[in-house]
Amino acid sequence: MSKFIIIGERIHCISPVIREAFDKRDPEPILKRAKEQLDAGSDYLDLNIGPAERDGEELMQWGVKLLQENFDNVPLALDTANMKAIEAGIKVYNREKGKPLVNSADAGDRIGYLDLAAANDAACICLCSKQGIPADNDERIAYCSELLERGMEHGMDPEDMWFDPLFLVVKGMQEKQLEVLEAVQMITDMGLKTTGGLSNNSNGVPSHLRTILDSTLCAMAMQCGFSSAIVNPLDKRLMETIVAADIFKNNVLYADSLLEL
Amino acid sequence: MSKFIIIGERIHCISPVIREAFDKRDPEPILKRAKEQLDAGSDYLDLNIGPAERDGEELMQWGVKLLQENFDNVPLALDTANMKAIEAGIKVYNREKGKPLVNSADAGDRIGYLDLAAANDAACICLCSKQGIPADNDERIAYCSELLERGMEHGMDPEDMWFDPLFLVVKGMQEKQLEVLEAVQMITDMGLKTTGGLSNNSNGVPSHLRTILDSTLCAMAMQCGFSSAIVNPLDKRLMETIVAADIFKNNVLYADSLLEL
Repeated sequence: MSKFIIIGERIHCISPVIREAFDKRDPEPILKRAKEQLDAGSDYLDLNIGPAERDGEELMQWGVKLLQENFDNVPLALDTANMKAIEAGIKVYNREKGKPLVNSADAGDRIGYLDLAAANDAACICLCSKQGIPADNDERIAYCSELLERGMEHGMDPEDMWFDPLFLVVKGMQEKQLEVLEAVQMITDMGLKTTGGLSNNSNGVPSHLRTILDSTLCAMAMQCGFSSAIVNPLDKRLMETIVAADIFKNNVLYADSLLEL
Repeated sequence: MSKFIIIGERIHCISPVIREAFDKRDPEPILKRAKEQLDAGSDYLDLNIGPAERDGEELMQWGVKLLQENFDNVPLALDTANMKAIEAGIKVYNREKGKPLVNSADAGDRIGYLDLAAANDAACICLCSKQGIPADNDERIAYCSELLERGMEHGMDPEDMWFDPLFLVVKGMQEKQLEVLEAVQMITDMGLKTTGGLSNNSNGVPSHLRTILDSTLCAMAMQCGFSSAIVNPLDKRLMETIVAADIFKNNVLYADSLLEL
């Protein structure tokens, strides 16, 4: 078994600081957030440039090169609604530490992202959804299978498809939480990798309480085989929990120092 | 599904303060620890009077009455190597909030504790072990079945047998941790209740780090169906994790205030 993979989510155009840095092509705020996340234990960095309709291709290439040149070819998730920008990013991407990760395809309108990943020998996050939220695990697994088949038809290795069961908000969809965990288990049992925006669960919860829910859900999901997540690696409790769960799963060899984050 | 049951472990003769209070029949230190644990969310209190060879029967009766009279007939786990003392405790036990819980039987030398529980219409913690630590889950499940059969032969309801898979220490037995979790799942799949001394896992770990391991393991175990634990309820992070896992399992209805411990 291999260590849980952390995809740091904090280079995101939704942050005013990051958006301004993108606009001005100002490296400093981006490098700062990258370093913080890598120091905190991120394995991948998500680079979310937003819709980026105008200059997305050039912006994505600038971001990829900036991060990889400054952080020893750190692996990246390329995240934008502009598919051409993802393709442009892949063109300049250095694969020394792994394939680029396309974020994200689904079984509906975003199926093209999977084709794009396949055509460019990239990995791809695959949402188990088609239109909106899947109604149940029958739908989740149907979409997962659809995506798996499509990817393999286009020559992808199933290892390069990271399936996201779609985490749902506790406040409003509490009764669906066990189903999401069960989906993680089902996808794992199919021999596939999983990932997801875990902190969706705690949307709308007072911010100081979110870490309790996020870390608990992550431990429960890891028990079901959850193999990576898109998270804020500065959430210390969450990161401690991930290390501890990796210890119980025997993915890393125990040392006291591992827990001293 | 029902809420996770917390058995507070802090009234234990291993603590010098408690041992002295037992010796002197001094109520205050015991009532103080009881209140702390109940305020922190304990459902049951473990009353561990140690070997208590000399005056165990009288001491256990004194302790049972002291705790139940002061805390509205709080349910108790009766914990001592002196079987006569457990029987004496049951005699004065008020069942308004549930049956007394005998702590504990195993499939070996301690099988008599199960017979005692059966004879007195008590519940019983049943260790899935015979001599020392079970070698694997074949042994755990064999002992679990032995105990289940014996209890039922003596007229016990399986609901009243709480099976302890035996948590093992990470430092030294890291590769066995997933097996313990699997045992919890297997026992749960048999339709049975589980419990255990969860914090065994972190023995020998620097004390400020133990809560990370304990809370993570508890969340993972709860995902496998773990239904109660013998713990220190003053471990805030552990208690927060238990509440959060109960929320994800839909055992309690979400409210922000639940997480504000």
